[in-house]
Amino acid sequence: MDITTRDESTYVVADYLLDRLVELGLDRIFGVPGDYTLGLLDHVVGNGHLTWTGCTNELNAGYAADGYGRLRGIAAVCTTFGVGELSAINAIAGSYAEHVPVVHIVGAPATVAQREARPVHHTLGDGRFAHFMDMHAEITCARAALTAETAAAEIDRVLLAVRDAHLPGYLLLPSDVAQAPVRRPARQLPARTDTTDPEALAGFLMDAERVLRAAGSDVALLGGLMVHRLGATKELTALIEHGRLPFATTVWGKSLVEESTPGFLGIYTGESSDETTRRLIEHSACLIMAGVQFTDLNSGLFTQQITRSRTVEVNARTASVGAATYAPIELPTALAALSDLIGAITPANKPVLQLADREPAVPLRGDAPLDQETLWESVRRHLGDGDIVLADQGTAFYGMAPRRLPEGVTFVGQPLWASIGYTLPALLGACTAQTGRRGVLLIGDGAAQLTAQELSTIMAVQLPALIVVVDNDGYTVERAIHGPNEPYNDIAHWDWTRLPAALGGTGVITARAGTVGELGRALELADANPSAITVVQAFVPADDVPPLLASLTRVLGRAATRTA
Amino acid sequence: MDITTRDESTYVVADYLLDRLVELGLDRIFGVPGDYTLGLLDHVVGNGHLTWTGCTNELNAGYAADGYGRLRGIAAVCTTFGVGELSAINAIAGSYAEHVPVVHIVGAPATVAQREARPVHHTLGDGRFAHFMDMHAEITCARAALTAETAAAEIDRVLLAVRDAHLPGYLLLPSDVAQAPVRRPARQLPARTDTTDPEALAGFLMDAERVLRAAGSDVALLGGLMVHRLGATKELTALIEHGRLPFATTVWGKSLVEESTPGFLGIYTGESSDETTRRLIEHSACLIMAGVQFTDLNSGLFTQQITRSRTVEVNARTASVGAATYAPIELPTALAALSDLIGAITPANKPVLQLADREPAVPLRGDAPLDQETLWESVRRHLGDGDIVLADQGTAFYGMAPRRLPEGVTFVGQPLWASIGYTLPALLGACTAQTGRRGVLLIGDGAAQLTAQELSTIMAVQLPALIVVVDNDGYTVERAIHGPNEPYNDIAHWDWTRLPAALGGTGVITARAGTVGELGRALELADANPSAITVVQAFVPADDVPPLLASLTRVLGRAATRTA
Repeated sequence: MDITTRDESTYVVADYLLDRLVELGLDRIFGVPGDYTLGLLDHVVGNGHLTWTGCTNELNAGYAADGYGRLRGIAAVCTTFGVGELSAINAIAGSYAEHVPVVHIVGAPATVAQREARPVHHTLGDGRFAHFMDMHAEITCARAALTAETAAAEIDRVLLAVRDAHLPGYLLLPSDVAQAPVRRPARQLPARTDTTDPEALAGFLMDAERVLRAAGSDVALLGGLMVHRLGATKELTALIEHGRLPFATTVWGKSLVEESTPGFLGIYTGESSDETTRRLIEHSACLIMAGVQFTDLNSGLFTQQITRSRTVEVNARTASVGAATYAPIELPTALAALSDLIGAITPANKPVLQLADREPAVPLRGDAPLDQETLWESVRRHLGDGDIVLADQGTAFYGMAPRRLPEGVTFVGQPLWASIGYTLPALLGACTAQTGRRGVLLIGDGAAQLTAQELSTIMAVQLPALIVVVDNDGYTVERAIHGPNEPYNDIAHWDWTRLPAALGGTGVITARAGTVGELGRALELADANPSAITVVQAFVPADDVPPLLASLTRVLGRAATRTA
Repeated sequence: MDITTRDESTYVVADYLLDRLVELGLDRIFGVPGDYTLGLLDHVVGNGHLTWTGCTNELNAGYAADGYGRLRGIAAVCTTFGVGELSAINAIAGSYAEHVPVVHIVGAPATVAQREARPVHHTLGDGRFAHFMDMHAEITCARAALTAETAAAEIDRVLLAVRDAHLPGYLLLPSDVAQAPVRRPARQLPARTDTTDPEALAGFLMDAERVLRAAGSDVALLGGLMVHRLGATKELTALIEHGRLPFATTVWGKSLVEESTPGFLGIYTGESSDETTRRLIEHSACLIMAGVQFTDLNSGLFTQQITRSRTVEVNARTASVGAATYAPIELPTALAALSDLIGAITPANKPVLQLADREPAVPLRGDAPLDQETLWESVRRHLGDGDIVLADQGTAFYGMAPRRLPEGVTFVGQPLWASIGYTLPALLGACTAQTGRRGVLLIGDGAAQLTAQELSTIMAVQLPALIVVVDNDGYTVERAIHGPNEPYNDIAHWDWTRLPAALGGTGVITARAGTVGELGRALELADANPSAITVVQAFVPADDVPPLLASLTRVLGRAATRTA
C-alpha cells in the first residue's frame, strides 16, 4: 500500500477507509452508485489500487462481494442509503450465516440533514436515520455511523472486527464525512493476536494423545467450513498427511482439501452418505472433527451419528476431547499442534486407505436424453485445474457436491443460507478475486431468473466462464418437496441462448443441449475457448432429481406439511 | 366472501388468513415459493377468490404488491424465511415510507424446529428465529409471530392495523401453524371507527370560516398524497368544486384529482414550480393544504414558502388553522366538513380561475432527434382514459410529472423512497389490481436493469402495457448530480427490443426510436394494439435532463460534495 504519496492536506475520510481496505487485501469494490455515495466513488476511482465494479442491482452487488470475499478473505460492497442497503441486505445476511467477511459501506445523507431531521429521499420521512443501521445489527459483527471526529478510529475498529470475526461489518458514511480531512494512517493495522492459552493447549494435546494412541490406526477425520474461513487449510492438509488419515468433508466444506489427496473418502452427509464413508466417519475408534458445524442440509437433515466420546474436535476458539473442552485455543494453532502430535505417533509404514473412485461409471451415450446423472457427470469430466465451480442451492448443488473434483478446483455453494440465485453474481466476485481462473456456474433456470441481469456485468468485465443453466421447467427442488404439479412451482420459459445478446454481450458462445452428445459438444467448445463466456441451456426432465437431493427432500416434504 | 361453505374440520390458519385478506378486498397474492411456504400456497391456489402470481424474485414481488396496494388499498406478498423476506425488505420499507398497506406473509420453519433452536437452512445457524421479524420492526406498523393458539386474534390485529394505519404489516407463519385447525371467522372485521372529536371539529370549522370569509375569493388549495391514501379524493374534489378553488398538487400527490378539473394549476414544487402556480399557492390570502407532507423531492428541495398564518391545513389525524391545531379530526371528515362550509360561503357567481394549458407548445418534427422534451410530450399526447402511468424516479418522473394528464389517467411515482427500478414490477401489481387498464411504464435504462426480469411475468400474465425504456447510456440523474463523465455512472448497453423474446415473450411489439417520427410511429402501433405489450427503446442524449430535474440536481450536487 502506498499511503505516503498523497498530499496530506487533501487526504479525507474516504481515502482513509479505502486505503485500509487495500491494506487488508482488497483490490475491487462492488456496488451501485447513488447520490449519497458519488463523492466516495470519486476516491475509489482515484485510489490507484482499486477497481470499481458497478453491478445491475444491489442484491447482486452483495452476492458478488460475498463471492469475492470467499476467495479473497475480505470484500466490500458500497450502496446508497435506505433503498440500496436494504436491497443488498439479504446478501449481507448470507455472508453472516456463511462466515464471509464483507464490509457494507453505505453512503448516507449529509450530517446537517441528519442533525435537522430532514425528510429527505431514501428515508422513511420521519427524520430518523438509524433505522437501517439498526436492522444491520442482526447480521453484522460491528457497525459504525462515521463522523469526521471519530472516523479513523471507528473504521479501524469495524475493519478489525470483520477481519478477525470473519463476519460482515457495516459503515454508515454521510456524504460530507467522506470528504472530511483526516490524518493518514500512522501505522498498519495491528496483526491478529493468537489468543490461545498455552496451558489449555497442553491439556488438550495430552488428552488427545491418549485417545489417538488408543485408537491406533483406526482414526478418521471430518473437515468443515470453518477450517477454510479461518485460513487453516494448510494445517489441515498437513494433519491429514502426517497421520495418513482417511478423511471426508461436509458439503459446506467441500473442496477445502484437494479431493485428489490420498485418503479422501468423499462427502459426509449423515444417513445420505455413501455407505463406506458413513461407516468410517461414524465408527472409527477416533474421529477428528475440524471446524464442523452441522446444519440441516449439511448433515443429511441431522442424521449424523457421531459418538462424542470418540471425537477430538477443533472449533474456532475451542478444542475438545470427548466431553472435555479446552479454551481459548484457536483453530489454526490446534490443527498445527495436532499435526505435529500425529506425525510423532503415526508409524512410518501406516498405509493410507485409498478408496477406489466410487463415482458410478455413468455411461455417456451421445444420443441419450440428458438427465441429472449424465448432466453433472459430463460437466465433472470437463472440469480442470483452476476452475471455480459455483453450484446453486438446487439440483446443481446436490448433483455436483457428491462428485470427486479434479485437483485445483474450488467449489462454492451456500448450503446454510441457501438463497437461490446467489451463485450467478457470486461468479462475478469469485473470478475477479482470483483473476485468470475460469468460473463454472451450475444453476437451475428458476434460480437464475432471480439474478439473471448480472450476466451483463460478467460479460462487460469479460470473465472466462462456463454457465450451465438447467432448464427443468420450474422449481424442481420445491416440486420434490411439495406440490409436484402445482402452478406455484411453474416459471416462465426463457431462452437463455438469446439472453447474452439482449444484455449487450458480444462473442458469447451459446448452445442448447437436450442430449448427452449435444452437451458434450458444447463443453468441448467451451474448453477450446477458455477465455470466452459459454452459456449452455441444458434440458432435463422436470421431475428428475439427484439421489442426494431425493433423500433430503423426502424428509423436508414431511416437514413442510407436518401439522404439529 | 364465502366463509361458510368450507368444511369446518379442515379449516386451518392458512384459510383464515386468506379469507380475511379477501374480506379486505384482495384478489391476488405476489411472491416466490419456498419450502416453508408451500403448504400455505396450496390454500392460496385452493381459495377460489385468490390468484397466485409468482414473481421472478422477492424484491420484484414486493414492488408488485406495492403497485397493487396503491391501486387497490390493500396488498399481500408472500416470501420464505430469511432469504426471501430480506430480499423483499426494501420494497416493504418503500411501502412504509409511501404509506401503502402491504401485508408481508413470511413462511417460517416449523414450531418444533424453532423450539429446539435447530440450525436449519435460511437461518443464521444460531438457533434464533426472531432476527428478521425484529428487522421488520423498523418498517411495519404491526407484527406477529403466529402460533396455533393465537393465530386468529393476531391475524385480525395485524390486518386491522395495516388497514387503518395504511402501512405495511408482518406475519410470521411457521409451516405447521399454517396447517393448524382454527375456527372460521365468526363475524366480519370491525369497520374503521371515525375518531373525530365533534368539539374539535366544531372549533376547527369556526376558525376556518373566519379565515375563509376574510380571504374572500382569494383562496387556493394544495393537495397531497395522504388524501389519496386515506381514500378522501371524492371529498377533496367536492371541496374544490364547491369552493371553485384554484388548486395544485404536489408531485407526490399527482393525479389525486383529475388534472382536467377546472381550476387546476399544475404541480407545486416550491421554487421549481411554474411561476403562476407558485404565486397562487404561496401568496393567496388563504391556502387550504390537504394531506401534504413536504419532502426534499416533493418541495423543490425545501424551497416551499408557505406562510402558516394564512393556511387551513388538514392532515391524517389533525386539522389546523394557522398555529391552532385541533385533534383528533380525521382527514376525510375534515374535508367533507370544509366542503360543506365553503359551499355555503362561496358566491354562486364566483368564476373559476382557469389557466390556459401552459405546456410549452413543443414542436414535434418527425426527423428531429429525440430529446427529453419531445420524448415526454410525445408520450403524453398518446395517453388515454384508463392508462396507469408509472414513472420511475429519474428523468421519466421529472419529465412527466409537470405535464398535465388527460382525464382518467392515474400517475404512480415514488418520490420519497425513490428506489430506482421500482416501477417495472409495480406495473405488474397496478395492472392486476385494476384489470383492463393499460400500464404505461416510463423508465430509464439504468433503473430498468435493476428489475428487468419481471418483464417475464408481465408477459406471462399478458397485461396490456406500453413500456418506454429511455436509453441515455447510464445513470443520467447521477451524472447531473455529480460525475458527468465518471465510469461509475456508466452501465452496460442492452438491446431492450431483444429482451422480450429472451424472457419467453411472444407477440410483443418492439421498436427502437431515435427520432420524434420513429417514436410517434411506435406509439401509434401501441395504440392500435391496446391489448398487446409494446416495448420501445427510446434514445436521448446522455446529458439531457428535464428542466424540473435540472433545477433539483443543481442543489443535490452541491449537497453530494459539500464538506460541512
